Parts: sequence; C-alpha cells; structure tokens
Amino acid sequence: MERTLIGALGSRVGQEVSISGWVDVRRDHGKIIFLDIRDRSGKVQVICNANHAEALAEASKLRPEWVLEITGKVNERPEKMRTEGANGNLELEASEIKVLARAAELPFPKDEQVNLDTLLDNRPLTLRSERERDIFAVQATIVDAYRRALQARGFTEFQAPALVGGDAEGGAAVFKVAYFYDKTAYLATSPQLYKQIMVGAFERAFTIARIFRAEKSATTRHLSELTQMDFEMGFIKDELEVMAVLEEIIRDVVSEAAKRHADAFARLKATPPALGQKFPILTLQEAQKILGSAEAPDLQPEDERRLSEWALKEHGSDFVFITRFPTASRAFYTYEDPAEAPYSRGFDLLLRGLEINSGSQRIHDYDAMVARIKNCNMDPKKFSFYLQAFKYGMPPHGGSSTGLERFTARVLELPNVKEASAFPRDLNRIDTLLHAADTVED
Amino acid sequence: MERTLIGALGSRVGQEVSISGWVDVRRDHGKIIFLDIRDRSGKVQVICNANHAEALAEASKLRPEWVLEITGKVNERPEKMRTEGANGNLELEASEIKVLARAAELPFPKDEQVNLDTLLDNRPLTLRSERERDIFAVQATIVDAYRRALQARGFTEFQAPALVGGDAEGGAAVFKVAYFYDKTAYLATSPQLYKQIMVGAFERAFTIARIFRAEKSATTRHLSELTQMDFEMGFIKDELEVMAVLEEIIRDVVSEAAKRHADAFARLKATPPALGQKFPILTLQEAQKILGSAEAPDLQPEDERRLSEWALKEHGSDFVFITRFPTASRAFYTYEDPAEAPYSRGFDLLLRGLEINSGSQRIHDYDAMVARIKNCNMDPKKFSFYLQAFKYGMPPHGGSSTGLERFTARVLELPNVKEASAFPRDLNRIDTLLHAADTVED
Repeated sequence: MERTLIGALGSRVGQEVSISGWVDVRRDHGKIIFLDIRDRSGKVQVICNANHAEALAEASKLRPEWVLEITGKVNERPEKMRTEGANGNLELEASEIKVLARAAELPFPKDEQVNLDTLLDNRPLTLRSERERDIFAVQATIVDAYRRALQARGFTEFQAPALVGGDAEGGAAVFKVAYFYDKTAYLATSPQLYKQIMVGAFERAFTIARIFRAEKSATTRHLSELTQMDFEMGFIKDELEVMAVLEEIIRDVVSEAAKRHADAFARLKATPPALGQKFPILTLQEAQKILGSAEAPDLQPEDERRLSEWALKEHGSDFVFITRFPTASRAFYTYEDPAEAPYSRGFDLLLRGLEINSGSQRIHDYDAMVARIKNCNMDPKKFSFYLQAFKYGMPPHGGSSTGLERFTARVLELPNVKEASAFPRDLNRIDTLLHAADTVED
Repeated sequence: MERTLIGALGSRVGQEVSISGWVDVRRDHGKIIFLDIRDRSGKVQVICNANHAEALAEASKLRPEWVLEITGKVNERPEKMRTEGANGNLELEASEIKVLARAAELPFPKDEQVNLDTLLDNRPLTLRSERERDIFAVQATIVDAYRRALQARGFTEFQAPALVGGDAEGGAAVFKVAYFYDKTAYLATSPQLYKQIMVGAFERAFTIARIFRAEKSATTRHLSELTQMDFEMGFIKDELEVMAVLEEIIRDVVSEAAKRHADAFARLKATPPALGQKFPILTLQEAQKILGSAEAPDLQPEDERRLSEWALKEHGSDFVFITRFPTASRAFYTYEDPAEAPYSRGFDLLLRGLEINSGSQRIHDYDAMVARIKNCNMDPKKFSFYLQAFKYGMPPHGGSSTGLERFTARVLELPNVKEASAFPRDLNRIDTLLHAADTVED
C-alpha cells in the first residue's frame, strides 16, 4: 500500500492506510499499547489492541526511535479522548507493524532538556527532539525569507569563496589552511570584499556565506564557523538607505517566521520580536547619553542590553540601530564623510540586547580606498585584486551582514548562540569535544 | 530627482528622468556623443548633443566604466534608428551629467573575449562583461530553482559545516586547517554525513554547501572549492526513488533557467539541455555494452562523452543515469543489496558528457554500517558521532549531490568549469596566481 503522510491522515478517516515513521513515545498498558508515531509532516497516535494480536505482540517489543511501517485504519477518537492540535481527533488502529530499523536504548529521553554539552555530544539524537526541530525549522524559514526579500528587491545571489589568499578585514583572528605548493591560505572571516566586487557586476548582490573566526572566545555569543547573510547595494546616498532596505528585509523575515511557525514559538515559549512602527536609530553619542555613560569608541554587551530595553519601552521595538561610530573603530572600508569626521557611516543593528548585524556605507573612490588601507598600516599590494573593483569605477555603495545563528538565537530567545547552530564549532568542539581523541586525528 | 531604473524607461517616454549607471560603451562623433549606460536592470542609449553644451562637454571626457548620474528626457527614436531588444525604441537625451566615480583606462575592452588566465586575473572587471553577468545570473537561477523544487517536495534546508574533525569520505584529498590547541581540522569534502544525520530529524533535508578538494588536478573539470547542492530523503524503497526526485528537480531547474534567461542562452550561443520524455537509465554493464568496451569498475571521461551522445540520439535527452557500479568503487556508505552483489545502489547522472551528480541508496542498519567501515579499513571510533544516527534508528534512505559549477558549465556549454565559478580556486590560483607574491602571504 502506498505511504500516507501523517499530516494528511485527517482526510483519510475510515480508510485503511500505511504510514511510516519513528516511535516518538510508547505507552504500554499491557492489552493496549499506544504509540506516538512521527514523520516529517506530523505525529499521530497509533493504538495496538487485541483485534490484531500480531501487531500487538510486535508493539510490545518496540522502543523509542524504532523505525516502522504501520498499516491500519484511521478512526475518529471518542469525543472525550480528543486532544488539541493536528490529528488530536483521530488515531490509527494498527493491523500490521513492520520494523524498518531498530534503535538502541536512548541515553536519555529524546525530548528531555539536557545541558549544552550533552545536547551537542548527542547531536544526531537530540536534533530529533521537538525543540531542536522547531529551532532549525524556524532557521530554514529565516534564511529563505531573507533571500526572497532580497530577490524581490533586485539583488542577485552569488557564491562567495571560503578559501582566501589573505586576511581580508585585517585584524580578526583567522584560521590557516595548508594549500598547494606549501602556500598558506586562510578561511574567510567575511564575504565583504567579494560582495563589493559583485556590486560592479550586478549593482545589488547577496550571498549566504560560511565564515570562520579564530577568536579564542568561549562566550555564549561566539562560534568559530558561522553563516552570514550579506548584501551589498550600489547607488546609495548614505548609509540610511542601506538601513532602510535592511529594516524592510528584517520585517519580512520576522513576519514570515511568526506566521509559519506560530506553534514552534509557543512550544519554545518565545515571542516573535516586536517590530514597532519603525526601528529607532541612535547615534553612538545619543546612545551613550541614554546610558548615562562616558563617550567610548564602541558599546559593551551590557550597554547593548540596556539600549534594547530602552527601544522596546520607548518605541515598542526589539530592534534598534546604532550609527556614527568613530571611523577608527570600524573596518577599513567604512566611509567617512569629511564633514562628519571623526565619525563614520557605519551602523550596528541590535536585537534583544545583541548585535545581530553590522553594515555601512563604504569608501568607493579608488584613491581614498588606497589611502585608507595605508592609513590602517596595511599594504595596498595585498589588496590588488580587490582594488581593481575601485580602479574601474565603483558607485557609492553600502551593505550589511546578518549573522544567521545570532539572529535565530535572538528571535527564538535562546540563551546561547550555539543552540542556533545544528553543528556548532567552537574553541573546544568540532562535533565532539576536541580532547576526545577518537574523533580528531592529527 | 528620484532615480529611474533603466529597465523602466519604456513607460517614461516624453518625461524628464534621472538614471544612474556605468558607461558601457562610448561613441564619440564630435558634435554628438552616444553613451550606452548600464544599470542592474538593463541598458539604454544616451545621446549628448549641442542642445545641452555642458552635458556634451562632460561627455567628451568620459571613458568606459565611469559611473554617472544622468538627467534627461526620454525620447522615442526615429523609426529607422530602432534596434532589437529592450529600450531599442528609445533614447535618453542628456541635459546634465554628474560623475559619481571615474575609472582608469581598461586593460582591454570589457566585453572582449580573453583567455582564461586574463579573465580571472582581472575578475573584478571581467565580471562586468555581458557574458559573465549572463553566466552568474543563470547560476543564481539554478541554485534558487533547485532549492525551491526541494522545498516544494517537503525538504528542509540546513547549514552544513565546512570545518570537520576528520576526513569523512575516506580517500579524497583534504585540506588541513590549523585549529585551536594545535589540533588539526579539515575542510569538508562533502556534507554527506551531516545530511544523513539530518534525515533522522527532518526525514527530507537539503543543503547548499561549500566543499573543498585538495586533488592535484588541473583539468577543465576540477576546482579546489566548489558548491554542492545536496539532498537526502528517508523511507525509500531503492535508489530509483531518489533518481525520480532528482529528475523532477532537474527538470524544474532547467525549465526555469530556460524560461527566465532565453536572452542569455542566445547571447552565449547555448541551448538549454534537452530533457526528452524521461532520462534514460543504464546499468554500468549496459553502458559498457553500448560502448563496446570491457567491464571496468568505473567510466572514463571519454566514455561519459560517448554515453551522452547515445542518450541524446536514442532518447532525445542530454541527461543519462548510470547505475549499479561495483560496491567496491563507491563511497563506503553506499547500500548493496545481498541479491545484487557485487553491485551497489549508487548512480551517476551525466549531462552532456560530464558527471554532474552522484547519489545512492545508503546503508541504514547500524551493524551493517559498522561492518562496512571496518571492511574499508577505517576505524568506526572515528565515526562515533555519525554512527549515533544509525544507532538510534535510521530509515532506508538515499540522496544525491549536484556540483553547481559543473552543472552551470554544462547547461551553458562552457568549456571549463572554472568559468562557472565567480572566484575559482585551483592548483595555481586563489584570486591571483599563487606565485604572484603580493597576494598570498605566509
């Protein structure tokens, strides 16, 4: 019999069907055994009883995560046995159970909340929990809605390289790769230079890129491999135009995630971020005034938390833009208007206390770019490839970069960014802990 | 005045507008200067004449790739001056030209066909040519149509890691990364193990992943960094189900690319691949019979070319599947049915003489997987993370992997796969040639 997806059982009441899936939960009452069976489309309660002795006997051997093919009849549940949610009004009475794969005894119940190391040590199992599937289903929507919002605004997607010949941004700790002919290559810390080059070709370009940070940080905000959603656009007047496009995109993404995953937000006890009428925009100086703190070239994590509280209270927005950081504290390619010195046209976007995006208007004039590189004590020769873009005519342009894992974590109110990466890498872990000798060879 | 996109000028005839873009071509007739101006939406001819002396004077200084803002009136062209294509019936009479950025003299005309090394040495410039923009616009459609076809079939996207703790597939040459605490990490040669793990969580999963191959090959088919479009699906009967889904996806992708980029195909003198009624399927033995060659564990490049010719001639299809390779010549996780030994349930998909995809049904039983790993002289301990997926119940499953650059190259009939990568890395090049000392530091 052809397989019916569990999510489609509602239209098959009274019929014989065949379903396939995993044993999510098993409740053994001796003469009656209940199974919650899960497939990609949902869950359903299966009842095994004396009407089908062989199926009941088979059910008595089952354990969580066994993989089954079950034939049976879709019945409506008695009125008082109904539950909320999909398939809460029906059950499948099993007439035949076929085991497709057995599972070892689980080290802990799949849906039990465990500490982060246990969660990650057992990732192939814990990814099956409702909580983790919710997180990564929402993440898939976020990245897809982000792309679609950009496509709708005339941005062309491109594939940014992960292997680079030098340390693009100058400063961030980078991983070294042994390349051919004993050359050292590096893992990209950002697709920045490539997306600027792409402005020359497509004017509006975006990429979903893997990037790598070799910072020796073990905080709740750091990963050593992450996903960046980057866009860059030409022919802007100033950074406010970039911020306006970013705000539109974020509004689309949050609305789409909230609409498609209302159940997941409820289960995760998270509220979709408040968008307010408009994301408030503060200059760094204005922000420091609100904080009552002294002027400083950048914000501290505690400052970011307090500014987010302010934005929610004063503007009903979980998002707040901070602009006009001192040029000296921003990446070398950040544009500074002479009339605005020593402040740059860079910005950060905070969400619920965390910087999830940064961007700026960029320098577009060749001579100015060469001068800035020298000013930063870097060698323009090492940027000869990148500089071609400026040599051959670049419009005023700018862009921004959103960290997918940070964004997901803040949207879902997860305390640690590692929870928003299916396979997080950090100071101590690549899948398994680094000191677990059986997984990392040298 | 607000900017009008060049692609929207058709609806602005008779009006004053402001456009922004690059000088694509400049034709100087002294008293009249014609400019072809390009933005992300298209091209238009701008005419500078004595009606606007200042604009004409400005135009006399311009060179290709200068970046301009031009104000003027949209006129219909005289009947006999019209050309084919978008905006061929109109021109913009410039009243004011503002230079946003100048460009150095180009080393060669932007749209000139140059050899591959020149093309890549000057990538920030050559990406602006019509040919290169066509290639990467089609590529953006391919990757997007691939994702949408999978989403429509219930696949969930995930982010596969690029940094891995070991050499997953066992065999392929890998790049080493200096990780924290003097540990060696590796660059992923495939997202294979992770997408299988994801089957446990989502049953159907896909990823667009960056992968890395350290093979010392300098052929027209090799890159050291590439993009793979990978999917994996649970609850299959055999590899034919995977092939059926793959064929549906490929048909969607090719149809979408052909529909959206008819102009680009024409300019590139390429024909969208013929899909036929159904992609023919040959076992390796059947293929070797057609070739009149002796049995061998795999196909040679020349064999692949001849089989593609056969498929087009006999089945009107530029695609042909080859199945049932000897298990010993396939990746360790490939499923072999005892009744079919020594042949495996792996397959390749050829497009116009080149393998662009390979896939298989996978082993799903834990004991069988451990036995196979040992059989391949690998240590199951090093796969302990991956093996959890099998330990805790995996359905019969399979999937496949399409190389984005190879696929793009064959769809557009580009002779070298490097032409289908915006920023190709290979044995000799990361942006610039490795021996160009100013770009690779150590």
